[in-house]
Amino acid sequence: MHRFKITELGKNAFWLRGTERDHLVRVLRLTPGDKVLGYDNSGMEYTGVILKIEEKSVTCRILSTDHPDVEAHTSVFLVAGLSKGEKMEWVIQKGTEIGMDGLFPLRAKRSVMQLEGSKAQERVARWQKIAAEASKQSHRVKEPQIGEVCNWGDLKDKLPEGTQWLIPYEEEKTRRLTTVLSTFDPNLPIAVLIGPEGGFEAAEVARASEDLGAQSVSLGPRILRAETAALAALTLVLGHFGDVG
Amino acid sequence: MHRFKITELGKNAFWLRGTERDHLVRVLRLTPGDKVLGYDNSGMEYTGVILKIEEKSVTCRILSTDHPDVEAHTSVFLVAGLSKGEKMEWVIQKGTEIGMDGLFPLRAKRSVMQLEGSKAQERVARWQKIAAEASKQSHRVKEPQIGEVCNWGDLKDKLPEGTQWLIPYEEEKTRRLTTVLSTFDPNLPIAVLIGPEGGFEAAEVARASEDLGAQSVSLGPRILRAETAALAALTLVLGHFGDVG
Repeated sequence: MHRFKITELGKNAFWLRGTERDHLVRVLRLTPGDKVLGYDNSGMEYTGVILKIEEKSVTCRILSTDHPDVEAHTSVFLVAGLSKGEKMEWVIQKGTEIGMDGLFPLRAKRSVMQLEGSKAQERVARWQKIAAEASKQSHRVKEPQIGEVCNWGDLKDKLPEGTQWLIPYEEEKTRRLTTVLSTFDPNLPIAVLIGPEGGFEAAEVARASEDLGAQSVSLGPRILRAETAALAALTLVLGHFGDVG
Repeated sequence: MHRFKITELGKNAFWLRGTERDHLVRVLRLTPGDKVLGYDNSGMEYTGVILKIEEKSVTCRILSTDHPDVEAHTSVFLVAGLSKGEKMEWVIQKGTEIGMDGLFPLRAKRSVMQLEGSKAQERVARWQKIAAEASKQSHRVKEPQIGEVCNWGDLKDKLPEGTQWLIPYEEEKTRRLTTVLSTFDPNLPIAVLIGPEGGFEAAEVARASEDLGAQSVSLGPRILRAETAALAALTLVLGHFGDVG
């Protein structure tokens, strides 16, 4: 059954509009009587049957309401230093599949790409679309939030209070990720700071520690590219708490 | 220091030829007196100083020999159903960084791309090159082996005796990867079978179980794309045995 993001939810019906409506009609060519799945980012999943297709909306009658246990129980965010377009895109796509709760693009010192103003907003909108598509593909019922491009100073306010911060760092030779995870509370959010290509500068790691209480950790002896580190760290954190694997 | 794959190793010197020699001379423009790192896939790492640059070879005197603890202690192989070029390429690149011991491309039932003959050989050569580059980038001293494109019937002979087989499978709802890993011996190789786009067919999972004793496992409730499943599974297996994270 095809999955759609619900535009409006009623008691016995839901409505799909905009791109969801167009995708259903033009690309998938579904017709009244066809069954679809809908989600509204509340964690619920609705099985519906198409009642009516109109120029601007599709009406579906709700057949059943479900609460699938598909979302990770521990909330893990990635804060990713801006790196070239394609790398961010696949961290967002793969990170969504693996189960991240959100991603915040960070202007890091070594970020080659520096997004500003409307260009930044367009890019974030595109990233949100990638997260939405990956959510459907992986059968999630909540799309991860893609935050606005932010600076170091913004992070504390962007993430929930009580967030537990990790910063994988090449120069951290002793403290391993798994050791730190065993001290973390799975009921509080976890944020993983990932550098851009070239990694974080020492000053950024120090700042993360001072401002956010971030613990620098080693992911092991092999040097991982930024995008590989992001997905490996996410997988290890979610795996540690039984949310993947 | 730049890293090179040693073409010939002597008692007090090593030689770089072919593309390694050309890369050193033409791209990096190193000159006699410059220090370099060399590896010969034995697990050893050699610090050398360039003595002589000739048209077909570079001679380096060995200053020191080291045995860095950079390779994973548990040997994990990926067997990946052939999928479109770029996906295989990044599974090979990222898998090398994370620490796989090798990858075997498999002609799976749903493989869209079916490589045969010389075309297959060229592709494997290209993949081996990607693995070699990723090995240098991640400071590995052993390049993972990229096997020839093979069929189901070849797998048993391709992998070492005693290999412990895993096959992540969407339809496996009960047996989790981590549960199975706790029964595995980290001193014996582990092979993870990953489907092509569209995943394995039930008949292939059954065959893997009968012929190889592969245990089908769930990676969790979210549906992962083939390439995401490959890297998540590799990370979780190596992470379970302390080789990453």
